[in-house]
Amino acid sequence: MKPVREYNLGLVLRQVAERGPRSRAALALETGLNKSTVSSLVGELIDAGLLRESPVELRPGTVGRPPQSVELDPDGPFVLGLELGVDYLAVWATDLAGVVRHRSFVTHDNRSARPEDVVSELARLAEQALEEPFAGSRSPLLATVAVPGLVDADGTLVVAPNLGWSDVPVAALLEEALENPPYAVRVENEANLGAVAELVEGAGRGLRDFVYVSGEIGIGAGVVLGSELYRGASGFAGEFGHLTIDPFGPPCGCGGRGCLERLAGEDALLRLAGWDARMRHAGSRPEWPGSMLADSARAGHAKTLEALSQVGHTLGIAIASLANLLDPQAVLLGGYLAPLSEWLRVPIEAELETRALAGRRMRCRVLPARLGGEAAVRGAVALSRQTALETVAVPAGAR
Amino acid sequence: MKPVREYNLGLVLRQVAERGPRSRAALALETGLNKSTVSSLVGELIDAGLLRESPVELRPGTVGRPPQSVELDPDGPFVLGLELGVDYLAVWATDLAGVVRHRSFVTHDNRSARPEDVVSELARLAEQALEEPFAGSRSPLLATVAVPGLVDADGTLVVAPNLGWSDVPVAALLEEALENPPYAVRVENEANLGAVAELVEGAGRGLRDFVYVSGEIGIGAGVVLGSELYRGASGFAGEFGHLTIDPFGPPCGCGGRGCLERLAGEDALLRLAGWDARMRHAGSRPEWPGSMLADSARAGHAKTLEALSQVGHTLGIAIASLANLLDPQAVLLGGYLAPLSEWLRVPIEAELETRALAGRRMRCRVLPARLGGEAAVRGAVALSRQTALETVAVPAGAR
Repeated sequence: MKPVREYNLGLVLRQVAERGPRSRAALALETGLNKSTVSSLVGELIDAGLLRESPVELRPGTVGRPPQSVELDPDGPFVLGLELGVDYLAVWATDLAGVVRHRSFVTHDNRSARPEDVVSELARLAEQALEEPFAGSRSPLLATVAVPGLVDADGTLVVAPNLGWSDVPVAALLEEALENPPYAVRVENEANLGAVAELVEGAGRGLRDFVYVSGEIGIGAGVVLGSELYRGASGFAGEFGHLTIDPFGPPCGCGGRGCLERLAGEDALLRLAGWDARMRHAGSRPEWPGSMLADSARAGHAKTLEALSQVGHTLGIAIASLANLLDPQAVLLGGYLAPLSEWLRVPIEAELETRALAGRRMRCRVLPARLGGEAAVRGAVALSRQTALETVAVPAGAR
Repeated sequence: MKPVREYNLGLVLRQVAERGPRSRAALALETGLNKSTVSSLVGELIDAGLLRESPVELRPGTVGRPPQSVELDPDGPFVLGLELGVDYLAVWATDLAGVVRHRSFVTHDNRSARPEDVVSELARLAEQALEEPFAGSRSPLLATVAVPGLVDADGTLVVAPNLGWSDVPVAALLEEALENPPYAVRVENEANLGAVAELVEGAGRGLRDFVYVSGEIGIGAGVVLGSELYRGASGFAGEFGHLTIDPFGPPCGCGGRGCLERLAGEDALLRLAGWDARMRHAGSRPEWPGSMLADSARAGHAKTLEALSQVGHTLGIAIASLANLLDPQAVLLGGYLAPLSEWLRVPIEAELETRALAGRRMRCRVLPARLGGEAAVRGAVALSRQTALETVAVPAGAR
């Protein structure tokens, strides 16, 4: 196939995927291609099982045949998003229109398990998705796996302090557990994927430059610049939790001292508020500490309010450093931080005003993220879908 | 003129400006345009005074007429780069090939002068450049002014802690002092321009993602991502000197506490090394503290070596935070930090290894910048030239 035709097939497919069912005439107008080219491209996409003719709706009171639309074939390809969290596993599947066809979530104490066993369990959950009726006999086009740590270009989890893992070849192990599946497996940092999800369907929609701060067991971040995920030179950008706040502070699991995560992460916040961080592990969902502390703050418990103020100031110091460096439009507070934004925002903004050189002129907003504990797995499936639409215009078999 | 023709004129002009004298045939090959189009475009650029036929060099031993080349007209347009430093002023002029035609530098204690008077003096220096023979009766195409502080979109210096200025409309004042010149005046942060200079002709050549740290009276930074200057949402990115190192440390001129600049800036370094920072103001060039301290370190003075080690560790803490966030390929040490890199690098790398989560895997190099105290003014003239080549293909008069 000629590259131009391949490019145009992708163009038409993405138009339908992003903007919904539409007529061939609308597609010609929107893509700038002529109508006969569009008709031929649409024909090819229908033959490949990617598009279908929309069922004709006869509306009472209208006269004549409505214009014939095409839409994504609901029996067409799908993609997977997987998440390997510190204490849970999750799998989502969507079709190319982004409609969720399957989701599963299980708590699983991955900290005390062998990486091989955790990856096998994740593969089992993925295979459950593939056994659902929507999957038919088809394979997904792509699977993206969210992990809580640094990932190198080969899909190896280089270090994940909160899992206690280092140098775990997640992509290779998962491919082995799935018996070399006919689709690619990609691995990406969970906060990066959370940022992608917020950009696509959350509080980051319409923003160009923002930082998504992910409060899970650790504190990570995804940096979006120019409406795209910024990964850094080696793919290691966004380790916001390891900004030094107190150079001579308590040692952190990363080998440093006085890191943000150590002083204002979930364990620190729970301890300051008088709770035992180990309570988390009783099958709780990742949102647990946020909603529990929000209830406590709403009930006016002084110790909780003090803890939130202290953690807010500490987060604010780090966010002011970030703002001095990057001048983003917004910082989104995600994970367990989102339900607590109401209490964290004031101390954060106070530090921003004092410590960011541009102060109020900067207009860096502090906003709650919208996607909660699902952000990473949503981002994983969104990135799979985006990549599939950009690269896999037509399944090889149909060419 | 049709936009396509305008675009192609710019394409040919930039090709000659960036790559030197070349034949019409070479231009056709390089631009993908056909030869007769190139000949017509070259003719138009010659008529506009932008290009000229290269003088024919008859080389002994060669037979026949050498291919006729075109080159930038040395009597063609030029651009200006101006710098308003804390204690000096500088003006450079180059032609569109980047050949420096004029440079001036005067020490000037701008901290104790009225902004209007400083800008008048800068305008006087610019006018001196315009009186040089190379300028003929022509105006420059663009002037870019480097200033040591935050600049908004209107060319107002919002705040410059080390000048003690705030809300000074530098662009407007300069246009007034130059009596509404027929060329545009742009204002940009000095560290941003230093980063541009290092990218174009210094230690950043060939790098995609790096941070240029500018050690002047204050510590600034220019962030280059994807081989382009990253300015942030409001143009305020790169205020590296105001990263918080010690939340409860000494107050900084910016209103914060324990900023990097306060703990590891020029004044702190000189004080730690046992010098009086006020010595600087006796007509010294901006490189002064760096070369003086390098001599002292080379002579083995213990107090200097200790000061460099301490400041290196403090810088390293801030650079590790930056690396955790952005994962750049390199951090370039500029201004007075460049001649001291030999002593600063070891403590900085030690902190990077301990505090950056990716540690050694990150491969963030710590390198001396190459352009010394001239980086900002070189960046100013480089940005003028780059912008002129992108936007002013043919002077309006010639169209």
